[in-house]
Amino acid sequence: MEMEANNRVNVLEEKIKGPTNPMVTPLLTDLYQFTMAYAYWKGGKHLERSVFDLFFRRNPFGGEYTIFAGLEECIRFIANFRIGEEEIAFLRQCLPPTCEDAFFDYLRGIDCSDVEVYAVAEGSVVFPKMPLMRIEGPVALVQLLETPFVNLINYASLVATNAARHRFVAGKSKMLLEFGLRRAQGPDGGISASKYCYMGGFDATSNVAAGKLFGIPLRGTHSHAFVSSFMVGITLDDSNDRLIDKQFKLLFASADEIVDKSLCSSNGATTCEDFVGLVQSWLNKLQYTESLRGSFGETNQSELAAFTSYALAFPSNFLALVDTYDVVRSGIPNFCAVALALNDLGYKAGGIRLDSGDLAYLSCESRKFFCAVEKEFGVPGFGKINITASNDLNEETLDALNKQGHEVDSFGIGTYLVTCYAQPALGCVFKLVEINKQPRIKLSEDVSKVSIPCKKRCFRLFGKEGYPLVDIMTGVNEPPPKVSERILCRHPFNESKRAYVVPQQVEELLKCYWSGDSGTPREELPPIQKIRERCVQQLDQMRPDHMRRLNPTPYKVSVSAKLYDFIHFLWLNEAPVGELQ
Amino acid sequence: MEMEANNRVNVLEEKIKGPTNPMVTPLLTDLYQFTMAYAYWKGGKHLERSVFDLFFRRNPFGGEYTIFAGLEECIRFIANFRIGEEEIAFLRQCLPPTCEDAFFDYLRGIDCSDVEVYAVAEGSVVFPKMPLMRIEGPVALVQLLETPFVNLINYASLVATNAARHRFVAGKSKMLLEFGLRRAQGPDGGISASKYCYMGGFDATSNVAAGKLFGIPLRGTHSHAFVSSFMVGITLDDSNDRLIDKQFKLLFASADEIVDKSLCSSNGATTCEDFVGLVQSWLNKLQYTESLRGSFGETNQSELAAFTSYALAFPSNFLALVDTYDVVRSGIPNFCAVALALNDLGYKAGGIRLDSGDLAYLSCESRKFFCAVEKEFGVPGFGKINITASNDLNEETLDALNKQGHEVDSFGIGTYLVTCYAQPALGCVFKLVEINKQPRIKLSEDVSKVSIPCKKRCFRLFGKEGYPLVDIMTGVNEPPPKVSERILCRHPFNESKRAYVVPQQVEELLKCYWSGDSGTPREELPPIQKIRERCVQQLDQMRPDHMRRLNPTPYKVSVSAKLYDFIHFLWLNEAPVGELQ
Repeated sequence: MEMEANNRVNVLEEKIKGPTNPMVTPLLTDLYQFTMAYAYWKGGKHLERSVFDLFFRRNPFGGEYTIFAGLEECIRFIANFRIGEEEIAFLRQCLPPTCEDAFFDYLRGIDCSDVEVYAVAEGSVVFPKMPLMRIEGPVALVQLLETPFVNLINYASLVATNAARHRFVAGKSKMLLEFGLRRAQGPDGGISASKYCYMGGFDATSNVAAGKLFGIPLRGTHSHAFVSSFMVGITLDDSNDRLIDKQFKLLFASADEIVDKSLCSSNGATTCEDFVGLVQSWLNKLQYTESLRGSFGETNQSELAAFTSYALAFPSNFLALVDTYDVVRSGIPNFCAVALALNDLGYKAGGIRLDSGDLAYLSCESRKFFCAVEKEFGVPGFGKINITASNDLNEETLDALNKQGHEVDSFGIGTYLVTCYAQPALGCVFKLVEINKQPRIKLSEDVSKVSIPCKKRCFRLFGKEGYPLVDIMTGVNEPPPKVSERILCRHPFNESKRAYVVPQQVEELLKCYWSGDSGTPREELPPIQKIRERCVQQLDQMRPDHMRRLNPTPYKVSVSAKLYDFIHFLWLNEAPVGELQ
Repeated sequence: MEMEANNRVNVLEEKIKGPTNPMVTPLLTDLYQFTMAYAYWKGGKHLERSVFDLFFRRNPFGGEYTIFAGLEECIRFIANFRIGEEEIAFLRQCLPPTCEDAFFDYLRGIDCSDVEVYAVAEGSVVFPKMPLMRIEGPVALVQLLETPFVNLINYASLVATNAARHRFVAGKSKMLLEFGLRRAQGPDGGISASKYCYMGGFDATSNVAAGKLFGIPLRGTHSHAFVSSFMVGITLDDSNDRLIDKQFKLLFASADEIVDKSLCSSNGATTCEDFVGLVQSWLNKLQYTESLRGSFGETNQSELAAFTSYALAFPSNFLALVDTYDVVRSGIPNFCAVALALNDLGYKAGGIRLDSGDLAYLSCESRKFFCAVEKEFGVPGFGKINITASNDLNEETLDALNKQGHEVDSFGIGTYLVTCYAQPALGCVFKLVEINKQPRIKLSEDVSKVSIPCKKRCFRLFGKEGYPLVDIMTGVNEPPPKVSERILCRHPFNESKRAYVVPQQVEELLKCYWSGDSGTPREELPPIQKIRERCVQQLDQMRPDHMRRLNPTPYKVSVSAKLYDFIHFLWLNEAPVGELQ
């Protein structure tokens, strides 16, 4: 078979790296996958060719769309799937002693060279019931893949979707920073969150490890502890070690802590020998400026020392957390004094971060102050200084800020984003749909839990205006939908819901990402930046009513008429006939 | 200093292993920890001796207690803390080019030999505001530890607490199985969940990797896919490949699939050549048994084939998922036919799993059937066959099952447990409380966010009945509370809340777990089974009203009178005086 396009590669040409997290091994699965493997093997069924679909049943967060993510990690996993001797030894201990030796020889020999994986492109917008992945191979082996695949897709897709939803509310012009590492569910909860939030439309992360692993831009300022470390000293008592009531006294003022006060100008031409003094003189000027008068009095001196010290370390990247004491009466004037001193030496200050209080009000007050400084002292661009807000932000608080009006340029979002607080799990499942060319259906008294049988192809049909109209599943050997040809799309379970569609464009959704050594050409695994672009572009392409935060219109997911008939035949055949007593 | 007890070890004697997850490296931190490190270094402050407290502000899940977990991973992290050349190279790229080379030399040289960590024992019951860990060391270095420590403690403590809460509702007699890997937040969300759920009182996990890493018992049955794989075959059409309406026909009955039908008896004395026939004959007997008559008719044959096949693979460990078709009319009679056939050969069946429907009703019906079989055929113990229930269980559904009455012996709990669905984040923080022997306070307009300054000692005071009464923080050099001596315990922020206590027992909570090369003896890191025992024992020791699921009584957390006075002096000194306009 010929290479069809540039983005297809032959598996044999390229070594695919292992999973990002080395803990993702064949043992990262449920015990019952191994007991079933043994039962299949013992019954001589283990090599039966099976087809499994990976899909979810409901969009998360009350929305009507989901971002598919985690594919690359799944492919990295199977590309390197091998059960080593140490793992075999452990499995022997886990399974009953009656299990035969030859089974462990079988496990010793397996890899994924006879597995094929078809999947939607990572970063795509996807919908319930549609297969995100179709996995084909020997039944015992593919069952071993179930748990790691579902694990790798569930959280990745959930958090990418959460990121996309935050981006939607924040708007395109804002900078979105993921700050969730410390609150994430474990170390790679944090690393995965950084990766998939970037994929879902965030701009940067605070997580250094994720920056290194995935090339995600890094951002950060400083914490309250930095400011506190410059706090005015207070002794506990004379002996400096025992607490004795009321024997406290002030020790020293904190600007004294700064030893090296000199700063070279941005162009290297001059050196200011007393940058601390320059800052202080700007603070005095600000205090005596008519237009700013009354907005503040004495600012906090330890905060000023902390800012000054940070500016001496990062003259080109001076950022300040301004809410340790009082944003309006201390943090902002202190920041401006330092920023103006830096400006004298040719440096442009980076911005401020607000981490508490009324972010709408405080951002507007800060902006007003910056604009007043720009006007008063003729510093071009000072009014546009970047304002970052953080502090337990989520979709709701972003929406409330938008409604109220604010001057925030960047949002730092942590806990609610990375733990997916509004819904911390996506329910991806992995269901057998065919074995030995025989279709399989999973029944349930709950109709929404009935799985759609057969090895299927999946298509997205686009309307005249370029929006996706409907996704449709067909049997794998049915003729595919064609542009400009009328096709009947049926709800898989509801007889009365159906519609004719004349697509203006047809996109096949499932493409081959892993073909083992079958020789089938497979899609390249794109770099994360490409996946992110795809995600942004796919979200842009959706009809706006599907994307609304409140009461969005459900996107339609359908089956072909033939598949519909077959599902219902199989269902009737398998379902027990009730008996009312 | 002399070794005081057996459970203390000298750091120099023993090499502590690295973190379980190799992704836990010094770069698993927020960028601002490195920018602050640079600013401290540049200002000559980086070696200032600092003390940070790690604590949380509110118990999760609406409860009044939390389990402290994650300590061992923190210690493993610092015991192996070293920034390698590759990491230094990456940090150079992340920081502005103006950062001086000597800073990177400093980073190259640091390890945690001059850090000390005092902590509550892992698996302890803990409360808000009390330090769980006190970390002392050079300020720049300890700041680098903030993010990984908080990450490693937050989720571990959250999920251990969730597990303890599930155990509390389920009761001590039930077997609790953690089945959450596929829905966990990423791969080590799954592995950590298994570890810390076990610590919090679960009995086993389905996660093979966690079983291997931590020695946690493993459990599992089989999935619906295993049953479906034996489903009666249906062709799509004559050519077996294209979907053509209404051209479906049955292919073959599935018991035919079983090739090797022989099973050796448990004692090895005899071999049953046709186990399939034996099962079928038992099914017939069940169908014609007066006391069971009418409860079922024809059972599903593919389900029977699946059960039979599984029993042939695991005659000593036969477990069956009985809800693929209909629990009462198919799954239970099929299970019993196989179990009785096994019984003929001297094997005892393991049990059933229910994964859908009304678990209370179905477990009771199953129990009735088992008891009827025991009576009818005189099989001792058959009535007590283990019933496992799964399917989106959580505290509420367990509670509802208890109220309704059920016959479940084991619960398999996944999504709600491991993602901590009811509250997916714990808000542990890491605050500077002292630097250069100067106490530090973090102020906030929100009183609950004000941190408690000073390097502190922490004690738990016990009352006459053996219950813990109150936790108290004191300055590190205050005389500690003594048994039988009256001590005043004050609420840290509320002037009017205080109480005298005469403790019958005093336990010091913070012990040294890492002393670098200072030579201070440190506590041993106990094996997970010991931590689990501690946790169970600590929970047992609590006064029952603190443990109630609804409206529990808050446990009291206090400060000494001296510490109270000092906090409020410092607070007044630091807080800006407002000005109403």
